[in-house]
Amino acid sequence: MRQRNKPWADDFIQENANLIVPDPAAHRGNWQALFGNNNPIHLEIGTGKGQFIAGMAKQYPEINFIGIELAKSVIVNAAQKVLEEAVPNVILLNQNAKDLREFFQANEIATIYLNFSDPWPKTRHAKRRLTYRSFLEQYEEILQDGKGIVQKTDNRALFEFSLVSYSQYGMRLEEVSLDLHALEDPENVKTEYEEKFSAKGQPIYRCRAVFLNK
Amino acid sequence: MRQRNKPWADDFIQENANLIVPDPAAHRGNWQALFGNNNPIHLEIGTGKGQFIAGMAKQYPEINFIGIELAKSVIVNAAQKVLEEAVPNVILLNQNAKDLREFFQANEIATIYLNFSDPWPKTRHAKRRLTYRSFLEQYEEILQDGKGIVQKTDNRALFEFSLVSYSQYGMRLEEVSLDLHALEDPENVKTEYEEKFSAKGQPIYRCRAVFLNK
Repeated sequence: MRQRNKPWADDFIQENANLIVPDPAAHRGNWQALFGNNNPIHLEIGTGKGQFIAGMAKQYPEINFIGIELAKSVIVNAAQKVLEEAVPNVILLNQNAKDLREFFQANEIATIYLNFSDPWPKTRHAKRRLTYRSFLEQYEEILQDGKGIVQKTDNRALFEFSLVSYSQYGMRLEEVSLDLHALEDPENVKTEYEEKFSAKGQPIYRCRAVFLNK
Repeated sequence: MRQRNKPWADDFIQENANLIVPDPAAHRGNWQALFGNNNPIHLEIGTGKGQFIAGMAKQYPEINFIGIELAKSVIVNAAQKVLEEAVPNVILLNQNAKDLREFFQANEIATIYLNFSDPWPKTRHAKRRLTYRSFLEQYEEILQDGKGIVQKTDNRALFEFSLVSYSQYGMRLEEVSLDLHALEDPENVKTEYEEKFSAKGQPIYRCRAVFLNK
């Protein structure tokens, strides 16, 4: 995600601390209290400019959404989009997703979304891909039994890698789509990237993979 | 596979009984004896006009290949191709692959190839797809421990179905390629269909899925 310097981002983030929550480790195990309900929590890793999480939150008011995004200059866009939609069921975290277990306790999350994650095309960077084994270990811990990941990407190599990685880890594929928009799934909420790439005629890949019961 | 009536096919098949072997059930458990060596046996289901099996047999002389093809008018083309290549390591079976356990005993096969299988697109015909669960049960029985299937197809829906079917059965994906010819794998032997479809710019899908040890 390209970032532009936004000098007002720091202030904006501080002023919206109820939406872009600081110190997520303090809420570990208690996120539902912060949402003020007992609804399931879905987590998006790499929220970008927020079109997906804002759209999902509107479409599924009975689900709580947490979005993690490292780039300050991007998460402010996501926050603005959530404020525009006026949805109460979103929390954003301006954090690195490298150890999710700091922020979430075991079984706290019901679904993880990986949308158009960085493909890290070089083999020597494979460990940085969000579907690498070490990430799957984290996801498995914070996810509830039998739950899993919904991934979308336009990057063929990342998708190929991810399918094999899920399988080798022992996860089970519940759905694979090799041209999501050919399906015309009315429930699919598009990300900004997804709109841009699919408009160019590139196929969008999607899969759903679950961890087997512990 | 479209079939043309070939009045000479019956005679040709009878005259080439050493290549198109009749009564395969009689050789169950003893195929290596027929090949005259102890090399591993790879099985192609739906051999079509034989470009793949003839090319593979030439490329891998240390492997025995058995090809199954139901259509008489097509298997004669495969036989002619094998005769032209003068490869000794191919046997063809003019049979329906609906119960492979009649022809092969447990652990007799080292790899199964499914090339451009009939996609059976209608949901009510899903059971006829060669990657449906009931077929996987047969494959598992005749394959050696830890061995599996190499599948190629240009049919997106069949490939999506197959990946999920393998995974749900408990198989492990070892490789997934969503655009085989982008790889330019020099070892890839193309089928007739594959040449035709990839020349049109359509992606060819390939995967390798193995059964876990029994």
